[in-house]
Amino acid sequence: MSSIIREVVLRHAITDAPKAGDFEIVERRLPATPPAGTVQVRLLWLGLDPYVGQVLRNRHMGESAPAPGEPLLGEGIAIVLASNDPAFAAGDHVVGNCGWTEEAIVPATRLRRVDPTIAIAEHLGVLGMPGLTAWAGMTQLAKVRAGDIFTVDAAAGVVAGTAGQIAKIEGATVIGVAGGVDKCAIATGRYGFDDCVDYKLDGWEEKLPNGITIHFENVGQRVLDAVLPRLATNGRIVLCGLAQHYGDGSVARLPVGPIIGKRAQIFGLVVYDFFARRDEWVAYAAPHIREGRLVEFQDVADGLENAGAQIERVALGTTQGRALVRVSG
Amino acid sequence: MSSIIREVVLRHAITDAPKAGDFEIVERRLPATPPAGTVQVRLLWLGLDPYVGQVLRNRHMGESAPAPGEPLLGEGIAIVLASNDPAFAAGDHVVGNCGWTEEAIVPATRLRRVDPTIAIAEHLGVLGMPGLTAWAGMTQLAKVRAGDIFTVDAAAGVVAGTAGQIAKIEGATVIGVAGGVDKCAIATGRYGFDDCVDYKLDGWEEKLPNGITIHFENVGQRVLDAVLPRLATNGRIVLCGLAQHYGDGSVARLPVGPIIGKRAQIFGLVVYDFFARRDEWVAYAAPHIREGRLVEFQDVADGLENAGAQIERVALGTTQGRALVRVSG
Repeated sequence: MSSIIREVVLRHAITDAPKAGDFEIVERRLPATPPAGTVQVRLLWLGLDPYVGQVLRNRHMGESAPAPGEPLLGEGIAIVLASNDPAFAAGDHVVGNCGWTEEAIVPATRLRRVDPTIAIAEHLGVLGMPGLTAWAGMTQLAKVRAGDIFTVDAAAGVVAGTAGQIAKIEGATVIGVAGGVDKCAIATGRYGFDDCVDYKLDGWEEKLPNGITIHFENVGQRVLDAVLPRLATNGRIVLCGLAQHYGDGSVARLPVGPIIGKRAQIFGLVVYDFFARRDEWVAYAAPHIREGRLVEFQDVADGLENAGAQIERVALGTTQGRALVRVSG
Repeated sequence: MSSIIREVVLRHAITDAPKAGDFEIVERRLPATPPAGTVQVRLLWLGLDPYVGQVLRNRHMGESAPAPGEPLLGEGIAIVLASNDPAFAAGDHVVGNCGWTEEAIVPATRLRRVDPTIAIAEHLGVLGMPGLTAWAGMTQLAKVRAGDIFTVDAAAGVVAGTAGQIAKIEGATVIGVAGGVDKCAIATGRYGFDDCVDYKLDGWEEKLPNGITIHFENVGQRVLDAVLPRLATNGRIVLCGLAQHYGDGSVARLPVGPIIGKRAQIFGLVVYDFFARRDEWVAYAAPHIREGRLVEFQDVADGLENAGAQIERVALGTTQGRALVRVSG
């Protein structure tokens, strides 16, 4: 018995940042049973990342924009309705690119089983790539330990929030840097940071602690220039992102003299290198998530009909924390 | 029975780089026996470092210039003639600051015993601070191993020469960077580097290998800019010195984007942090020195009367390898 499902597609090709009006909902008929090697899934949650906006306007290396009417790119959490692949069975929870849709038939190779007893939507955030990024930087590169004084910017985001919570779990003092009182409130209120410095206030640099032993950089020159003079001898810096520079093409630079003088250690981080170790991260995180020591801040739009508006907010940078669309369940 | 000894002192205070004519030899009478807690030593070798020139002209932080006629600063290798301290006995070989002199009576706390069966003058170079610097960078920070492709600049110097020889011992390929054919010949001929690139030739950057896995920086921006595009994914950079910048006060900077893209690891190195581990380095080095796999290039002036001319050459940067004065023996 085939089914009719709803799916979000582009109404027309776009070249600017995506807006709600660029999308429309269409109906699609799915085959009665999935072909061999594929799985039929029902979407629970859709995650929306800034890079998806770049793909939609054909500005992302390696992924070309879908044509109007074609399935859109998006990592989701889904439940398996029917499987024609030995790797999955009906009832499994999976994560993978299933599109912006109620249901989909997708190749089994595109999916990975997740443990729904830990959490559901969090497999797109704190248990997914953003959390893996934080874990890699904190435990594999900077090797956080009790007594560290840890700073991280873009502090309301899931990467920074998870990095800071890992640091707290390991016994460090955690100071966030974020733009505005709302974002700082997420860092201290939701993530439990010891403090958060609002870089939109004059003299914010003076509120950073002296003797920073680990810094995790997501922004760029502005924060690096403030942190470096306050870095402790033998301090470690994880370089993860340069959000300040993506828009204007400017270049962040680190002065070599202070790196030598402080015997600093600096680590470039690309999360792809740690994909094979996702299970280690999930094993580390699971008890902390179950016991409430590790959380994410979610920015949820309800229903596929609001996915377009949500990606518009993601592209504008006005979402806070993990941007999600609740599709069902 | 007291003795009359010869010693080099400043003839007058200096503010410019030291020149041979700024020094004179004076005679000095030493007490018949060293007072309690001191040791009488006869100098074998005097080592001359660029920072001594800075001290003499009162340009070094933490050390003020000696007045004309006062003992000069200089680390030497000496043999103990008489000891009034339980830590040393006549016949011991020691290293420490004894001045520019034939003999001296110095506090025992200023001396450290060295093993003359490994080498003598080399305790000022490859077995001393320059070698310790190289060992710390190569084995403790960059953790060199077989298959590494290693580059190092100021390649004729003892720090770079030792770093490259450690890399060879551990199974790496070693490419030096130096200014001029003579210095490159020291790197390949004396130190056994696989190749050395002369940065005074046009297009020298193109002769650097691609896929550099470890780089050891002693110079600054010029070499960093050439190395960074050729650094392998997961490449490591040890930042040790900035000779290019000391004169003009300019600042070397590293761009952050490529550090992330290459997942580079960067280590600031200050040798003081490793003083407590000198014995580990000597234990590592001793068999390689005895069997000729680890050597230094020495630039020797014979006799105390040539010490002034030698520090002039050190200050001008025209010495190559370890600058020494043979005092006796």
